[in-house]
Amino acid sequence: MNTKELYQLYKTKMQKIADVKYASAVLQWDQETYLPPKGNDIRGRQLATLSEIAHQQFTDDATGALLRELVSKNELSDKEQKNVELSLYDYTRGKKLSGDFVRKMSETVNRSFHAWIQARKDNSFAGFEKPLDDLIQLKKQEADLLGYEHHPYNALMNDYDRGLTVAIVDNVFKVLKPQLSDLLDTIKTKTQIDNSFLHQHFDKDTQWKLGIDILKQMQFDFEAGRQDISEHPFTINFNSNDVRLTTRVDENDFGNMLWSCMHEGGHALYEQGLPTEEYGLPLSEYCSLSIHESQSRLWENNVGRGLAFWQYHMPLVKKYFPQQFKQITAEQFYAGINKVQPSLIRTEADELTYHFHVMIRYDIEKMLIDGSINTKDIPAYWNEHYQKYLGISVPDDKNGCLQDVHWSHGSFGYFATYSLGSLYAAQLYASIGRQNPSLERELALGNHTNLSDWLKQQIYPYGRYYTSEALCKMATGKTLDCNYFIQYANKKYTGIYTL
Amino acid sequence: MNTKELYQLYKTKMQKIADVKYASAVLQWDQETYLPPKGNDIRGRQLATLSEIAHQQFTDDATGALLRELVSKNELSDKEQKNVELSLYDYTRGKKLSGDFVRKMSETVNRSFHAWIQARKDNSFAGFEKPLDDLIQLKKQEADLLGYEHHPYNALMNDYDRGLTVAIVDNVFKVLKPQLSDLLDTIKTKTQIDNSFLHQHFDKDTQWKLGIDILKQMQFDFEAGRQDISEHPFTINFNSNDVRLTTRVDENDFGNMLWSCMHEGGHALYEQGLPTEEYGLPLSEYCSLSIHESQSRLWENNVGRGLAFWQYHMPLVKKYFPQQFKQITAEQFYAGINKVQPSLIRTEADELTYHFHVMIRYDIEKMLIDGSINTKDIPAYWNEHYQKYLGISVPDDKNGCLQDVHWSHGSFGYFATYSLGSLYAAQLYASIGRQNPSLERELALGNHTNLSDWLKQQIYPYGRYYTSEALCKMATGKTLDCNYFIQYANKKYTGIYTL
Repeated sequence: MNTKELYQLYKTKMQKIADVKYASAVLQWDQETYLPPKGNDIRGRQLATLSEIAHQQFTDDATGALLRELVSKNELSDKEQKNVELSLYDYTRGKKLSGDFVRKMSETVNRSFHAWIQARKDNSFAGFEKPLDDLIQLKKQEADLLGYEHHPYNALMNDYDRGLTVAIVDNVFKVLKPQLSDLLDTIKTKTQIDNSFLHQHFDKDTQWKLGIDILKQMQFDFEAGRQDISEHPFTINFNSNDVRLTTRVDENDFGNMLWSCMHEGGHALYEQGLPTEEYGLPLSEYCSLSIHESQSRLWENNVGRGLAFWQYHMPLVKKYFPQQFKQITAEQFYAGINKVQPSLIRTEADELTYHFHVMIRYDIEKMLIDGSINTKDIPAYWNEHYQKYLGISVPDDKNGCLQDVHWSHGSFGYFATYSLGSLYAAQLYASIGRQNPSLERELALGNHTNLSDWLKQQIYPYGRYYTSEALCKMATGKTLDCNYFIQYANKKYTGIYTL
Repeated sequence: MNTKELYQLYKTKMQKIADVKYASAVLQWDQETYLPPKGNDIRGRQLATLSEIAHQQFTDDATGALLRELVSKNELSDKEQKNVELSLYDYTRGKKLSGDFVRKMSETVNRSFHAWIQARKDNSFAGFEKPLDDLIQLKKQEADLLGYEHHPYNALMNDYDRGLTVAIVDNVFKVLKPQLSDLLDTIKTKTQIDNSFLHQHFDKDTQWKLGIDILKQMQFDFEAGRQDISEHPFTINFNSNDVRLTTRVDENDFGNMLWSCMHEGGHALYEQGLPTEEYGLPLSEYCSLSIHESQSRLWENNVGRGLAFWQYHMPLVKKYFPQQFKQITAEQFYAGINKVQPSLIRTEADELTYHFHVMIRYDIEKMLIDGSINTKDIPAYWNEHYQKYLGISVPDDKNGCLQDVHWSHGSFGYFATYSLGSLYAAQLYASIGRQNPSLERELALGNHTNLSDWLKQQIYPYGRYYTSEALCKMATGKTLDCNYFIQYANKKYTGIYTL
């Protein structure tokens, strides 16, 4: 078989595996949106079977032989070479975890997830401790099986952002934390903003229509995707021509749905922009969770919580909710949606205090994985650091260490990407602004063509070709630098709080 | 391995294959309800991959060896034995069609389906003739590969109703046709019913609410299923605890959604009643399409177009549409919804003329498969027989031989089950009435507990255990007898048209 035929064989095999994986994604989407309650049990086994098939097909020895043969050929195009290398990387990683280990992990996650649900009902970490500890022991084992340099947590973070290490994140947070603390302390001395106008009654259907309008303006392609309602907003794709996002509506909180739309919309635009022709191959996949999050944060915060955006969109909001916003100017609205206030729940935090929520989780995870703290120590560490970083007392575990689903899912190594996403977003946005000094003026006129085009050229088409760092360097001229976010935050809050 | 362990191995294997098949069903459901247009292409290949995996896993030699070993054991329970026998039957059938043949069929169906779509747009059979003829030649080949006695069409009908033959259907239609023709001729001499009140404007959302109400009263379990909107109503299940039905709403035709709800509701109740504990095994599957159709027709027609049902439900309809039905009594409503009028479109036909639509298609299919007519003769034969049986001229192919999707899908052998469904429904309904003489009085009081219980005991739990004939005999004391329908129709229309 010549190289071209071998590559075709590889492509066909990968695309069939992708068909199974994306079928699984359809079942997951359905589970979160439309599944009737009694359907849940058998849906669980249907999902498990599809995962097993995809895993078996991908990790069989024939795949390995094919990939090793292909990677040694020198007649592949640059993109083909990259696809094969990334597939071989995934294959090698997949082979490190035995079928038994994967099944044991899956069962442990299942137990831990149900224990978390119950512990939240009981509002007590105690019932979650043992199953979580079992899971943490397995994650340590996973880190050993995968291999790492310097710190076992590197092996886990690598799954979410290839090449990300404790050294990198520690360095970032070391710069970020004192700067944000200072800024927060200064804000605390100022008169607090009144944003009570965001907490009136907002009809559900009207909010929904506004959300769809905003998504259309963001150029989300409704011919290649849709929005539905789910308990927890998320974005999922079945290929770049079928991207689904979800939202939720709170009739007493205006921001809840709107920023969920813009956040998930940012994720969804990225997925719609991934190269369709690479379906099933690594280059059709996103770069990393950090870069994915940069896309959601850029639209949610840099654009959606910016003054320029609301200078244009205030009339739209007033059209849908004339009574509620009658007296509110774009400037008042902008200040209201950017109110900074330390709070208990990460997903409800403002742009500034958000990072402290992430830092606390990151530190806990890192220490759990290297053994510096034990599972039982989580609540005390958590509560102490919410006091220390944010100056607030955690009243109970539900509002504390039981709030996020991630640990119960075994998603250790994920949280840092939330902060990095904001930092990348600030750096990208600054770069776009440098290259196009009229950016803010354009946004104030409701025109974000240049912004969208830049993302379509600089970020979306590369898929997994580059790591986060390399992509960032390509797009902005340098690797991640948290000073962009610090400058952005200082400028924003200086304006709003007249610091 | 002992018998118990072997059976467990068989069950595990079958359930994993079922997981893949039902995953495929979720993707199909999504395709008809929520899929954005650009997602269609890749959805097609995702579905093809899942089918291929399920087919490969089921027809591999290991499955055959396992089934043959199991079927020879005499320690299986009665139900276990039946499951194994039916699986072996399916396996043997599956092995008769090579992978190449299945793929060729799938490609030919795909071409034929798209040609049908285009031919309908062009309103001309000509563009459909060649692709359809290719498909028919393959169906003939399929009949040969599957094997048959007496008539090749038997091999195809057998797929939809095991044991059904040309001899059986010919005999039924030989009795049915002249009787229905006489009845139709008599009705034609009478004053026609005015049902214009059904063709006012009916708000979409209000119709939807009424449909949901009716489904709830039918005891459709919304914890184990849901209803959505699709272009063509259908019912599909992912297991008996997750049954999805769809409907459509026509704001200018009251009957369209309501009877689609009751029809699909009847299908859906059957699927919810199938034994959950047999998931993945033949006994969790429906008996045949004829019996499936008997369940939809029983609810749609015997119940839903009955006077008793409307004696109770007229106030509900008036609650939702007070203006439209202000002047209409239950008796007038009952007469209106049972108006008999020969028409062009099968899916819009009344209970009586419906059978002629089916008979024409059945005759055409039978003759196409045994070669008595050629594909090019379809339009002429069709138009001639619509004139002959129903006394109407077919103005064009769209309203004639291009109206149904079935042929373009290669579903030859399916149509007879539509008529048989009505006939079985009448026989079952008569049997329920004999065993419970208060049936109509109960329905007039809105109480169908006894009716539902009977179906839950006599039909639903058997799955594929019996053939249609055997199940009918079990439930009613005799095999299919079309005189029940003839009596039912005579009685109904004598009352309505004062014959």
